[in-house]
Amino acid sequence: MLDYDLTRWGMPLRYAVETVGTVAFAASGILAGMRRRMDVFGISVLGFLAAFGGGTLRDILLDRRPFFWVAEEEMLWLVLAMCALSLMLWRRGRRAAVSAKAIQVADALGLGLFAASGVQYALVAQMSPLVAVLMGVVTGVFGGVMRDIACNEMPTAFADHRPYAVLAFLGGWVYLAVQWLGGPAWAALIGATLVTTGLRLLALKLDWRLPGWRPG
Amino acid sequence: MLDYDLTRWGMPLRYAVETVGTVAFAASGILAGMRRRMDVFGISVLGFLAAFGGGTLRDILLDRRPFFWVAEEEMLWLVLAMCALSLMLWRRGRRAAVSAKAIQVADALGLGLFAASGVQYALVAQMSPLVAVLMGVVTGVFGGVMRDIACNEMPTAFADHRPYAVLAFLGGWVYLAVQWLGGPAWAALIGATLVTTGLRLLALKLDWRLPGWRPG
Amino acid sequence: MLDYDLTRWGMPLRYAVETVGTVAFAASGILAGMRRRMDVFGISVLGFLAAFGGGTLRDILLDRRPFFWVAEEEMLWLVLAMCALSLMLWRRGRRAAVSAKAIQVADALGLGLFAASGVQYALVAQMSPLVAVLMGVVTGVFGGVMRDIACNEMPTAFADHRPYAVLAFLGGWVYLAVQWLGGPAWAALIGATLVTTGLRLLALKLDWRLPGWRPG
Repeated sequence: MLDYDLTRWGMPLRYAVETVGTVAFAASGILAGMRRRMDVFGISVLGFLAAFGGGTLRDILLDRRPFFWVAEEEMLWLVLAMCALSLMLWRRGRRAAVSAKAIQVADALGLGLFAASGVQYALVAQMSPLVAVLMGVVTGVFGGVMRDIACNEMPTAFADHRPYAVLAFLGGWVYLAVQWLGGPAWAALIGATLVTTGLRLLALKLDWRLPGWRPG
Repeated sequence: MLDYDLTRWGMPLRYAVETVGTVAFAASGILAGMRRRMDVFGISVLGFLAAFGGGTLRDILLDRRPFFWVAEEEMLWLVLAMCALSLMLWRRGRRAAVSAKAIQVADALGLGLFAASGVQYALVAQMSPLVAVLMGVVTGVFGGVMRDIACNEMPTAFADHRPYAVLAFLGGWVYLAVQWLGGPAWAALIGATLVTTGLRLLALKLDWRLPGWRPG
Repeated sequence: MLDYDLTRWGMPLRYAVETVGTVAFAASGILAGMRRRMDVFGISVLGFLAAFGGGTLRDILLDRRPFFWVAEEEMLWLVLAMCALSLMLWRRGRRAAVSAKAIQVADALGLGLFAASGVQYALVAQMSPLVAVLMGVVTGVFGGVMRDIACNEMPTAFADHRPYAVLAFLGGWVYLAVQWLGGPAWAALIGATLVTTGLRLLALKLDWRLPGWRPG
């Protein structure tokens, strides 16, 4: 049922958005490695961890094989090409011309889509609603968490004090709500993505803060 | 056989102790996040990592599905409620009224029980004695290790210089000894837990030290 | 086919080299723990992580059970004995008499062999060439990465600025090239190991540098 809906909704659209998410997360990892003056291998690992870490952890937790990057191997080649490209741009002394804002927008899009697709994969694997929503959070967030841990930093998702993972959690429940109301899988996927990504962009624009331990 | 023994021993008792262990480890993660001034998401992740990290790693290594927190989903809701509760207490400006000592006692109990149950799961999965004992150590210790790595700290279990994981290792051999002597599974489970937890409490009380590299 | 070739090539040789690699990586972990003044448990965990981390991650990603350290359990006993031995040497006040250079040579050998065997395991599991080469890199490199992350350090493989993982990547393609040319599995295994290990030793001797972000 789910897969049938997805097929009708159109693989090209899903594929395009997934590619954008992968590129965005890979870029965030590559830029993080450059900022820390890693060598070309460290930069590549961070790119791969950020782009594939969340989805791989989800696939391990759901016991889903082949991994999504084995089934859609062109994603691996894409990220490998990005790593090679970043190296070439770099050797010629040019700085990557990607503004921090562009990265944030792409990251918000990736967060929303990866979280929504994580919920869907978990539902296909017969998980309960809470587990499915948590799988969505894992898919959307843990690529960035692994990137930060490999950099030997406290993950920004844990101490950013702006809504991030909480929005993926919220988007997961939107997915389930659409489905409980009888909506098709494509509507749930788009609705969840829009809520997560839209609220993330709003949160960045309006500087929303999460409750947290404030010094003083 | 093992499962039959466990059933007779009484699921309510096992369930109660497992719940105490989960609550204790989750509290240790939540408090660690508060101390580091993380936001509400970081605190929740640390609670989940500490409570479920060791058992999940064990289940992945044993290729055991569904995960214990999928089969007993109320554990997830329990930790989620603890995270929400900690947030509410916090917003009202109250400090968590949990003394460091209470945490240490609960942590010792969790260590003993999770280690013993890890040995049992591994034996049910036909692992050899050494692998089973190591699975017990992984189950009891790695939740805390993941919590500390996510906090960007050297895991306290590695550099505490008080017996901790070593006691889980010892408890695992106690489990096997009881079984080799013909004792039932419930006796092995209780014996291993008592040895690990009891020696841990004694070690804290008497300030035992492990051999290690002492400066000077 | 592959397994048949391997059998003819001689298990004793493969086994000997694999043992050397495990010992070398375990020693690197144990020495890293000593340098950081960890206690005996921390030192043991680092030894196990360095020796078994890369292969275990490979086995999880390939969904390969039993793990290699379950199938060849004497490897576990070997590393356990090394941890106990290091403790005894230590208590008698003797420093480990292993020079940094010996470690580097052993580490280069381990890198080459583990990377080549990782490619082979992935090909047996029907992975594509790129995935197989990446599995080789994971097998050879991630034991050391986990060791460094558990020490709360930025992994040296990411920021060493000398060729390391890149050579495992190169060795993986050598493996595939030998196979595409019709060579037997043992030739591919030896060729890939020689290229990776040989170039690593040359890189250390001649102080080759990877392109990276140089300050100034």
